[in-house]
Amino acid sequence: MAGNLDDLSRLCIHTATTNPLTLEQAVASYAEAGVPYITVWEHHLEPVGAKKAAKLIHGAGLKVAGLCRGGFFVAPGAQAREDAKNKNRRLIDAAAELGAPVLVLVCGADPEVDMPTARQQIADAIHEIEPHAKKCGVKLAIEPLHPMYADTRSVINTLDQANNMVMALSSDYVGVAIDVYHVWWDPFLRSEIKRSTNTIFAFHVCDWRTPTRDLVNDRALMGSGCIRIRQIREWVEDAGFDGPIEVEIFSDEEWSKDQDRWIKRIKTAYMKHV
Amino acid sequence: MAGNLDDLSRLCIHTATTNPLTLEQAVASYAEAGVPYITVWEHHLEPVGAKKAAKLIHGAGLKVAGLCRGGFFVAPGAQAREDAKNKNRRLIDAAAELGAPVLVLVCGADPEVDMPTARQQIADAIHEIEPHAKKCGVKLAIEPLHPMYADTRSVINTLDQANNMVMALSSDYVGVAIDVYHVWWDPFLRSEIKRSTNTIFAFHVCDWRTPTRDLVNDRALMGSGCIRIRQIREWVEDAGFDGPIEVEIFSDEEWSKDQDRWIKRIKTAYMKHV
Repeated sequence: MAGNLDDLSRLCIHTATTNPLTLEQAVASYAEAGVPYITVWEHHLEPVGAKKAAKLIHGAGLKVAGLCRGGFFVAPGAQAREDAKNKNRRLIDAAAELGAPVLVLVCGADPEVDMPTARQQIADAIHEIEPHAKKCGVKLAIEPLHPMYADTRSVINTLDQANNMVMALSSDYVGVAIDVYHVWWDPFLRSEIKRSTNTIFAFHVCDWRTPTRDLVNDRALMGSGCIRIRQIREWVEDAGFDGPIEVEIFSDEEWSKDQDRWIKRIKTAYMKHV
Repeated sequence: MAGNLDDLSRLCIHTATTNPLTLEQAVASYAEAGVPYITVWEHHLEPVGAKKAAKLIHGAGLKVAGLCRGGFFVAPGAQAREDAKNKNRRLIDAAAELGAPVLVLVCGADPEVDMPTARQQIADAIHEIEPHAKKCGVKLAIEPLHPMYADTRSVINTLDQANNMVMALSSDYVGVAIDVYHVWWDPFLRSEIKRSTNTIFAFHVCDWRTPTRDLVNDRALMGSGCIRIRQIREWVEDAGFDGPIEVEIFSDEEWSKDQDRWIKRIKTAYMKHV
């Protein structure tokens, strides 16, 4: 089993983890706390714009790990699917301007579209936007989402599915994002992570709270749930990943509290449980 | 695609679907409504006892589809695991006395037990209680549970896992229970149902509400969610299953309303959407 991390040098926090903070506030707080990486969420980026955000982030000495989140390619109508692809092209532009090496894709789902069709729409869309991603030097990370999100967020629900899509698309610019929250239950997780060797573009951590009180905004701090995070980190590192470790925690409970204290607790939990 | 069901002759309701009713009230209401099958939940059985319950149910002209639920085999300590097996043997006795052909198994999970160990504990326990089930003429149905229940309810989360366990245990008394709620998202559902041919011991229906507001008690009536129930019924029937179709809906919302009107809505939805 992997040992403790030596220091905070790979720590990244998602702006959604400190959701009440504006981008300016998040950047100031992360820099003050010695958090080296930031992953920017679209709703935090929008009021500032990519150009100004890049200046702000790099000026504070932070590095950008990724932009969240593209995707949502599934729709019953052709026009909506075209709009989604164009929106993703604009997000790729924003990622490039931000200096974000990766755009994370929550691939999409729609109760009106049957799942095999939805999966084909996703593969087609990624195939179509890939040349733009390549041109901009931005990698696309397919994130398998927990099956409890298969109704409206993504019909890519296992790392197996994501890996198969990556293999089929066969581009250096298409890989996977592995979030422990979505995949920890998977009986084939170890072999699937092995199959992701050298195509893991992002690694997200948090924990699964028992009982979980909300399907979206009740994620837990690392160490306060049932996920064997260190084991998964070991597998991910054995598969060649040595990039930033991104803390992504949606939590109504934590968002209601002081965010600087929250960042301190994240740092402590990161050293102890990741 | 399968057509509408011709009549209510295969309809079964779980007592947990009309949770506020006592067993006596449920039996009276189902019989009055022309529902031919009942699946009895342990907490409804307990105040009555299996002997009296059998008399009550058969006296009203109802047939028992199953008893819910055995399992919960996973525990850190050996004594707790022995206790769980003994409890399951008593449930097998109760099922036999009730005339229930099937005991449904929610196999168990415990945050303190790592998942590979937990899965082995489950396989071992079913192997050990199988002779008693065979002696009593009660079949054991392994129910794969949605991955959102992998923390405390079951580490058997896909039909693939359940099928593998059934194959390994290789007994006419061990099969699977397929509940659309748990498996609808699975990209391999069709092939796994095919692999369950002649080992499907129970088929449960309800629907997935969008958005789902509670992880346990917010199931929806058939037709008011995103599950393609009829497609799954077709696959299950192609795999040789022609038994009762069991409506299992945990819903705080529906439980707060009049239960006889709820049963009427279930009958209508069953004819229209199953």
